Amino acid sequence: MSASGEERFIAQHLANLTDGFPGAFGLTDDCAELTPLPGYALVFKTDPIVEGVHFLSDDAPEDLGWKALAVNVSDLAAKGARPVAYLMALTVPGKPDDDWMARFTGGLQKAQDAFGCVLVGGDTDRAPDTGVPSPLSIAITMIGEVRSGRMVKRAGARPGDLICVSGELGGAALGLQLRLDEGFGRSWLAEADRAAALAKYLRPQPKLGLRPALQTCARSAMDISDGLIKDLERMCRLTGVGAELKLDALPLAGGLRAALKVDAATAVMLATSGDDYEVLTTVAPEMAADFEAMARRGGVSVSQIGQVTSTPEVRLLDAAGVQIEHRSSGYDHFDRAIL
Amino acid sequence: MSASGEERFIAQHLANLTDGFPGAFGLTDDCAELTPLPGYALVFKTDPIVEGVHFLSDDAPEDLGWKALAVNVSDLAAKGARPVAYLMALTVPGKPDDDWMARFTGGLQKAQDAFGCVLVGGDTDRAPDTGVPSPLSIAITMIGEVRSGRMVKRAGARPGDLICVSGELGGAALGLQLRLDEGFGRSWLAEADRAAALAKYLRPQPKLGLRPALQTCARSAMDISDGLIKDLERMCRLTGVGAELKLDALPLAGGLRAALKVDAATAVMLATSGDDYEVLTTVAPEMAADFEAMARRGGVSVSQIGQVTSTPEVRLLDAAGVQIEHRSSGYDHFDRAIL
Repeated sequence: MSASGEERFIAQHLANLTDGFPGAFGLTDDCAELTPLPGYALVFKTDPIVEGVHFLSDDAPEDLGWKALAVNVSDLAAKGARPVAYLMALTVPGKPDDDWMARFTGGLQKAQDAFGCVLVGGDTDRAPDTGVPSPLSIAITMIGEVRSGRMVKRAGARPGDLICVSGELGGAALGLQLRLDEGFGRSWLAEADRAAALAKYLRPQPKLGLRPALQTCARSAMDISDGLIKDLERMCRLTGVGAELKLDALPLAGGLRAALKVDAATAVMLATSGDDYEVLTTVAPEMAADFEAMARRGGVSVSQIGQVTSTPEVRLLDAAGVQIEHRSSGYDHFDRAIL
Repeated sequence: MSASGEERFIAQHLANLTDGFPGAFGLTDDCAELTPLPGYALVFKTDPIVEGVHFLSDDAPEDLGWKALAVNVSDLAAKGARPVAYLMALTVPGKPDDDWMARFTGGLQKAQDAFGCVLVGGDTDRAPDTGVPSPLSIAITMIGEVRSGRMVKRAGARPGDLICVSGELGGAALGLQLRLDEGFGRSWLAEADRAAALAKYLRPQPKLGLRPALQTCARSAMDISDGLIKDLERMCRLTGVGAELKLDALPLAGGLRAALKVDAATAVMLATSGDDYEVLTTVAPEMAADFEAMARRGGVSVSQIGQVTSTPEVRLLDAAGVQIEHRSSGYDHFDRAIL
């Protein structure tokens, strides 16, 4: 009575990712078990990534492992929550070879070590074979911990709040363009900016260092996954407010500063496209100095990019105060919205 | 600044499923929040169902909604845990029409009302379009609650334990056969048994009424999703034990009692195939009477089907004590194991 193929697969490739966490039961049980620390609540997020929708078929397995976890951890970071554990449902077309799995779980291991969480459960299925390969799907459910009542909500922005964003914008969209077309932006893109954009797309870095600043100072927060304008509009709608953003204040990724001079429309489109996984937050003006100081202490750069308004509309203004038209429809084939 | 298509989709089809649960934030936030009752732990399970692997393309949307939740709740039931909440990641080929979604969420609503849990978060993606439709995938992550330290483990069976199973076996596999071939078993299958088998396949009933009996009396437990023998072997391997099962003692689904006389091999194969979502458990002999009494009080029928042995092998014996050969390879196209 020898172990089944599935048991061997789990033991060989996945069991190590539990890092001995007791409630994972070495991935031999049907369920995982977890209790938050006294005074803490658990928070949950599931954000699958699917081949052809959220990543390209020739992305490296190491990068997929990293990205599948990072996009979920990013949501927790924006809520001020600490990543604790995750479940993973893998749907794999055909039989995954050991080399692919070793590289994929290598990326996961690096990511979970960086973010401070472990695998506690999941499921592996073979995708149906209908003559053409079904897409690879990696569905992670993230479990985090936050002091009870301190989860930073998406709803909460009030007129007068300052709008802040972490890190840089547009790098991931530029990186995706470069993955689709190596020659993109050749006339204006420096080699270092090119490498940074690819890294930003392939290996998003959730801003966990911002958690104390968010918990203490933020009125509302979310991570930017579908683009600055789209996500800010969602945030504003929840409290019936709007926003004015200043193009000059946007922390553009290196490559886009150059692009802005050559082709401003493309630069704006990339800067407001998705996949940056930065934190978007609104802060009462009197908390702004504390927020910036705590962010700096957490090793995260933040920029003030505009202000919440009572007019329910999100406007992007140039240096002269003129509204810039922005289209976010250019990347529909990679748009994760369903309708 | 009107709501996006995705926001309308969530508001129209999914928000009601939260049933006002505070930590779901009306599905408008990035994360859900949950705290177990004092003295309780949370348990987690994710078990996606994928078109062409776990269900057929022409299964009714109402049945898919029910089944997607039931297969996950079944795991919790076997652990003695109470369902509380779930997240759902939907990957839909093309644009789901309102009628399909209404029927699908209608099935979910019935299931969550029956099982006592609510939707708290999730994600909806369109499956990639590569010329052929990608499969529909419904990935639910279930969150349950159990008194700390009282989750019933899969590991724990000891030689001498009685092996018990809830409900009936083989009905789901028979139901699947009937879905694939309407004429299957026409010579021996009564109409009522036929309807029961289809219901068992399409609408599995997690045995939540067994929770008190399991918490108090079980040494080990798991739900049967991949077949009695396969799952019992997994359970036995964890403590290096084996088992002897008596064919005569198996609680065969109605249709299979008749089949046993006509074609015993097919009857045995169906009885040991997957998808029954009954609870398999081992109980110390001195606890057997209590277990049965508590199960009865919970409205769940249970059968003693054999005994745990120290020889690490699972054997199925006929009335004369002769070992019955069983092949579980007949349903590989529907086998959820990956290797």
